Amino acid sequence: MAEEAAVRAQAETVRRLKQDKADPDEIAKEVAKLLEMKAQLGGDEGKHKFVLKTPKGTRDYSPKQMAIRERVFNAIITCFKRHGAEVIDTPVFELKETLTGKYGEDSKLIYDLKDQGGELLSLRYDLTVPFARYLAMNKITNIKRYHIAKVYRRDNPAMTRGRYREFYQCDFDIAGQFDPMIPDAECLKIVHEILSDLQLGDFLIKVNDRRILDGMFAVCGVPDSKFRTICSSVDKLDKMPWEEVRSEMVGEKGLSPEAADHIGEYVQLHGGLDLIERLLQDPKLSQNKLAKEGLGDMKLLFEYLTLFGITGKISFDLSLARGLDYYTGVIFEAVLLQQENDHVEDPVSVGSVAGGGRYDGLVGMFDPKGRKVPCVGVSIGIERIFSILEQRVEASEEKIRTTETQVLVASAQKKLLEERLKLISELWDAGIKAEVLYKKNPKLLNQLQYCEDTGIPLVAIVGEQELKDGVIKLRVVATREEVNVRRESLVEEIRMRTTQP
Amino acid sequence: MAEEAAVRAQAETVRRLKQDKADPDEIAKEVAKLLEMKAQLGGDEGKHKFVLKTPKGTRDYSPKQMAIRERVFNAIITCFKRHGAEVIDTPVFELKETLTGKYGEDSKLIYDLKDQGGELLSLRYDLTVPFARYLAMNKITNIKRYHIAKVYRRDNPAMTRGRYREFYQCDFDIAGQFDPMIPDAECLKIVHEILSDLQLGDFLIKVNDRRILDGMFAVCGVPDSKFRTICSSVDKLDKMPWEEVRSEMVGEKGLSPEAADHIGEYVQLHGGLDLIERLLQDPKLSQNKLAKEGLGDMKLLFEYLTLFGITGKISFDLSLARGLDYYTGVIFEAVLLQQENDHVEDPVSVGSVAGGGRYDGLVGMFDPKGRKVPCVGVSIGIERIFSILEQRVEASEEKIRTTETQVLVASAQKKLLEERLKLISELWDAGIKAEVLYKKNPKLLNQLQYCEDTGIPLVAIVGEQELKDGVIKLRVVATREEVNVRRESLVEEIRMRTTQP
Repeated sequence: MAEEAAVRAQAETVRRLKQDKADPDEIAKEVAKLLEMKAQLGGDEGKHKFVLKTPKGTRDYSPKQMAIRERVFNAIITCFKRHGAEVIDTPVFELKETLTGKYGEDSKLIYDLKDQGGELLSLRYDLTVPFARYLAMNKITNIKRYHIAKVYRRDNPAMTRGRYREFYQCDFDIAGQFDPMIPDAECLKIVHEILSDLQLGDFLIKVNDRRILDGMFAVCGVPDSKFRTICSSVDKLDKMPWEEVRSEMVGEKGLSPEAADHIGEYVQLHGGLDLIERLLQDPKLSQNKLAKEGLGDMKLLFEYLTLFGITGKISFDLSLARGLDYYTGVIFEAVLLQQENDHVEDPVSVGSVAGGGRYDGLVGMFDPKGRKVPCVGVSIGIERIFSILEQRVEASEEKIRTTETQVLVASAQKKLLEERLKLISELWDAGIKAEVLYKKNPKLLNQLQYCEDTGIPLVAIVGEQELKDGVIKLRVVATREEVNVRRESLVEEIRMRTTQP
Repeated sequence: MAEEAAVRAQAETVRRLKQDKADPDEIAKEVAKLLEMKAQLGGDEGKHKFVLKTPKGTRDYSPKQMAIRERVFNAIITCFKRHGAEVIDTPVFELKETLTGKYGEDSKLIYDLKDQGGELLSLRYDLTVPFARYLAMNKITNIKRYHIAKVYRRDNPAMTRGRYREFYQCDFDIAGQFDPMIPDAECLKIVHEILSDLQLGDFLIKVNDRRILDGMFAVCGVPDSKFRTICSSVDKLDKMPWEEVRSEMVGEKGLSPEAADHIGEYVQLHGGLDLIERLLQDPKLSQNKLAKEGLGDMKLLFEYLTLFGITGKISFDLSLARGLDYYTGVIFEAVLLQQENDHVEDPVSVGSVAGGGRYDGLVGMFDPKGRKVPCVGVSIGIERIFSILEQRVEASEEKIRTTETQVLVASAQKKLLEERLKLISELWDAGIKAEVLYKKNPKLLNQLQYCEDTGIPLVAIVGEQELKDGVIKLRVVATREEVNVRRESLVEEIRMRTTQP
């Protein structure tokens, strides 16, 4: 039958893609096609016709990936705590209306839940809007908090580049009415600390201010009503050349060519304090109230960053716009400049790994009386960082332990299961991390092999003679050294031999 | 107007409920009604007409609640790691068909996502089914893993009793073909360790086996086709008296009164090894193959539990049935026997705080060739434990720190912001957890008060004279002791004074 041949051909396609470790999305597509063909053929019993996969744009984390993930989280949480942050958590979904009108054009990417009777719900799109909702709901006007959780966007992800539909955000925000630019400077310091700690290679933090952008648009002749949409176009400059952005402005968005060209001159500019000083003297910008305010604060920010000693990696960049609607002041974005190619053959191409800014109006959108709580915050884009570190670990063949087990309780002879269980129970109760093979009579070789495979450093071997003598044989896996330890000293001995220096 | 009076009356109702700290669900309902009435009246500007709340059955965690939550998680994770578990993570949603047919009557509680084009998705209902999907998908036949994550059930929650629609599960499972009852015994040991560690008061772990239940149903004259539904009825015995369960069996489920009465005799039984021995001699049960197998394994289990020294808190209980369809062998459930009433005036009423069992068929449901991977696991019901600990903390007036800040960088005089920022930057770079008030010229009193409020133990005070002398004044908040420390020794001094003993 021709259909059966087609199914076999399709099965071969799938097999080949899997062998070639092709893009998981592509594999999934072909598998789906295969299953559909099979279903039409009607030959299958139909019991297992479903696709065995995670939803599009999501992934499981294996123990090894979790070990890398925990390392990254530890570095980030340590930094957030170093800066005195508290931690909060919010539900994975919000009332749909809580998210409405906060994300501009991106709202179409929000996951809605099915209306099953009751409230209309959506999965959170970021951690910032739930944070603002939390502040307004609890009438909090003053907090420094971090929040690490998954967010959801129905994007078309490029998972090989560390982009997913379900991904972690690590957010640190400072809410409250304070003297200008001190919290803003701390956010940049935090980005600098985290990216330095993680040793991801060289990076640059681009900084701009929405007020400078808006002032710039005004003096270039952009009508007020077009500020946000032109801002969205500028935001694309990190992915598109100026010529394309310009034609979007003029063609799609109806901006005059003169205004576009004028913007084109400004957005080429980047630098440090010198550029800020120059723009403060700019005959047009200096006449614009918003731009002047923004430039004044930018100057102050750079003074604080100088005190923190981090201006070397900061660039005031007029082309930085950021996508989200809710920013009102300073905005920033950190990009990796290059991969450390020594260990990586096929470097992951990554863009921004952190971003953030000031959003002074968002909490007010939730407060029944519109009371404002000024906020500034940063979000670390953890998935891309994972991708880089994962690939680095793969390439380096570094062996990553996925458990912390200190000792395997083993036996050399048969019929000692009861003795093994008695001993391991003593060890657990003393707080020792211990495992035992779930077999009545395991071979010693298999027990030692298990230690080799999983990196367990010690083996406590129970034997007839040792039981009579009141001792346990302790073997060091790496050196094969064996010592008899009195049973009552065993816990102490294991602790001593497995404490990190 | 009558409508306006009605709105005022409804507003008064809401005010009173809030004052009386009524059930949050009830308040939400009345608030919703109030808003609807207002909307119909059309008087409001409509800008903030939405309800400022989290979705029904969910909650935010404040920093204080997070501190308690992290404590509980730490105890649990420490235990899981002590037993050599790896950790995995899976997406918050699965393909809808992955969850289909796994939960029996409870399937109606699954949250579906809206069909926005593409795959049909549902939020995970537990961590067990995603685990089984993970094993089948990755062809893993052997793993010991834990997974701590939120799961979702469209239940009617009683939040005051720690029941939510979004809640954490802490799961530990052992998958693989092993000698009987060794992993099963370890799961019970883990429950025992965790409940002991958390000091929640006295507890009891009830144990039974699905094979014993099925054998019991068979010898009592329950038709095969009614095993699962009669099992569901038995499962209600912890909430309903026998008489009600009996009438459900006979009335709704069409069981003969004789069979029901026969079951009624068995489900009263609970005990230890003695009961197992007695039932092994039971003229009817001992003739049933399933029951005999189950009782034999139960005996073995109790022998291992004796070696672990935990039989004192284990009860073999024939009334334990467990709701879920997928169990195939040992099942268990831990309940708190009473509250420690010394510290708690109004004890939270809690039921089961942990449960689990053996499910040897679930992975096979996902494997294209139906290959089985035997599994046994335990799930810790963390939300109820939170509720108890939260209430205990409230009652004891224990002060919980929500940050780990070691030192506040302060100044006694004006115009020292720059010096404060320079110093705190040095401290951060040395790994000291430090904060500074975001004000140009904060009052010393306010800075000291901030330390009192947040529990920061040390203040590093920058002053004109000290700067000249190359020293920093270090103040111990608790004792008000002040010492001048040379700037280059400050980090060491702070470390020394804030290291936990």
